[in-house]
Amino acid sequence: MTRIAYLGPAGTFTEQATRRWAVERGADLPTGTGPDAQPEPSVPAAVEALRSGRADAAVVPFENSVEGSVPATLQALLQVGDDVRIVGEVLVEVQFSLLVRPGRADEPVRTVASHPHAFAQTRDWLDARLPGARQVPESSTAAAAQAVAEGRYDAAVAAPGAAEAYGLTAAARHIADREGAVTRFVVLRSGAAAPPATGSDRTTLVALIWQNRPGALLELLEQFATRGIDLSRLESRPTGEGLGEYCFWIDADAHLSEPRMREALIGLRRTCRDVRFFGSYPRADGRASVVPAHAGADTYAEALRWVNTLDRGPADAAG
Amino acid sequence: MTRIAYLGPAGTFTEQATRRWAVERGADLPTGTGPDAQPEPSVPAAVEALRSGRADAAVVPFENSVEGSVPATLQALLQVGDDVRIVGEVLVEVQFSLLVRPGRADEPVRTVASHPHAFAQTRDWLDARLPGARQVPESSTAAAAQAVAEGRYDAAVAAPGAAEAYGLTAAARHIADREGAVTRFVVLRSGAAAPPATGSDRTTLVALIWQNRPGALLELLEQFATRGIDLSRLESRPTGEGLGEYCFWIDADAHLSEPRMREALIGLRRTCRDVRFFGSYPRADGRASVVPAHAGADTYAEALRWVNTLDRGPADAAG
Repeated sequence: MTRIAYLGPAGTFTEQATRRWAVERGADLPTGTGPDAQPEPSVPAAVEALRSGRADAAVVPFENSVEGSVPATLQALLQVGDDVRIVGEVLVEVQFSLLVRPGRADEPVRTVASHPHAFAQTRDWLDARLPGARQVPESSTAAAAQAVAEGRYDAAVAAPGAAEAYGLTAAARHIADREGAVTRFVVLRSGAAAPPATGSDRTTLVALIWQNRPGALLELLEQFATRGIDLSRLESRPTGEGLGEYCFWIDADAHLSEPRMREALIGLRRTCRDVRFFGSYPRADGRASVVPAHAGADTYAEALRWVNTLDRGPADAAG
Repeated sequence: MTRIAYLGPAGTFTEQATRRWAVERGADLPTGTGPDAQPEPSVPAAVEALRSGRADAAVVPFENSVEGSVPATLQALLQVGDDVRIVGEVLVEVQFSLLVRPGRADEPVRTVASHPHAFAQTRDWLDARLPGARQVPESSTAAAAQAVAEGRYDAAVAAPGAAEAYGLTAAARHIADREGAVTRFVVLRSGAAAPPATGSDRTTLVALIWQNRPGALLELLEQFATRGIDLSRLESRPTGEGLGEYCFWIDADAHLSEPRMREALIGLRRTCRDVRFFGSYPRADGRASVVPAHAGADTYAEALRWVNTLDRGPADAAG
């Protein structure tokens, strides 16, 4: 049984991501009764469960298409040792359902509970459909669902997955005012080699550039550009060492096993104050990596053969 | 005996370069009666002597600090096969002497012969010291010296080396109006591996970039910049394929055996339409190559070791 720690409580989007990953990557897991999902109270707690051996994997939110990166996760990754790596990612559309106790889907709703952020994202729908209901704030959408299950409120605005977690039923689905928000979760393992390249891969790393060196960020970007590697994400974040000290979180659209990525990593290691490699893993969206003709593995191999001929002197090379 | 073809006639700066190289690199040559210097009528003829096996090396002018590159040499190198490489360079200060027949240093000079370019570079001196002498143009400074030896004129403005070549003596030395002009000569061999790195090396190559690709020249320069390689020379020259078709002659201050240079060559091979490698060889001025801390061989080796640890997974890497 693969034990997966995740940012709880049960019924959140993170649990949804966890279950989806377990199903999609099921073939990679030991067979048995299925993944044992362990909700943890915080991102550091989920990472600690992984490190201590209480869990085989951990699933934590990484970034949201509306709100940006999740600082608690970035911080936890920076603080954890080199043994923890990202081995996969899961995209979950942020959706909300109106959850009620079974058999009460057609009953009037006088009280509706949720997290304030969820209320904010479903305001239009609530104003139109439940104009008279009293809105009660709870600490999480999952806590709101649990309160409904306990009979304290009539309904909860929560993640669809909370229905199953708390024995509720959806009186309405897709009630977010704005469609299409997506949260990206990462799957962490300890002591694991990178999953094999798939042709649709991502490498996550952090580079610390030398301060007081004009052009250092441009040099950093050139390390990727000269090797034909697209970056899908570049975010500066404080290092925590003081104001003005930044590191760069980078998602590069290539896999550690590709020559272009190896050469770029060598370049970063040479030129940056520090580099942390957090893993190469398949993209959840399956979008094929763009590999310019000048950056493919075959091109690298041919160029290397050519350079090696230069050593031997022209006469030998011809023979 | 090493047979060296050079751009003649005897007594030119090229012969001076040839003899200097033979003396300076004497240890590299088979011992015997010394180099047999063969004057050739043109640069292509000197290269052909090398290719046909009539000569073991060829010395030709490459660039002049006043007049720039020597098109005949660049063209000959582009047309010759991959088996011809630059294995060394010689710098010769362009100096002029007033040469006369022995014993006539104090005789009046009524006629002075030289190449028109040499007259132009010694005009002030001639106007001041030989205001009444008739200036006779010849096809080369060496031809002028020969004519003096044959008694046809009283004096020649020629390279100092022409004195020995034609049995003349210098009535005056260092008569150029402008001091410090230098010509750089290159030594070519056929089928030779690059001489070992010395820490003061140069690599000469030609890159043909993709036309109609905005930013292609910048990409070319980045291939060197990201590897910490200085360029001491960059010159665009027509390819001969049509107007607007250019190639770039590059002197890079690094040696083929350095990891930074190998990686840059791989990058050029990947991204350029064509690359020609003309050799890595010691700089004549002995100036030490600038190797930034991030581009040294040790730094490359350490970075490569680091990247290789990423493959194995963190647990293995720690062990």
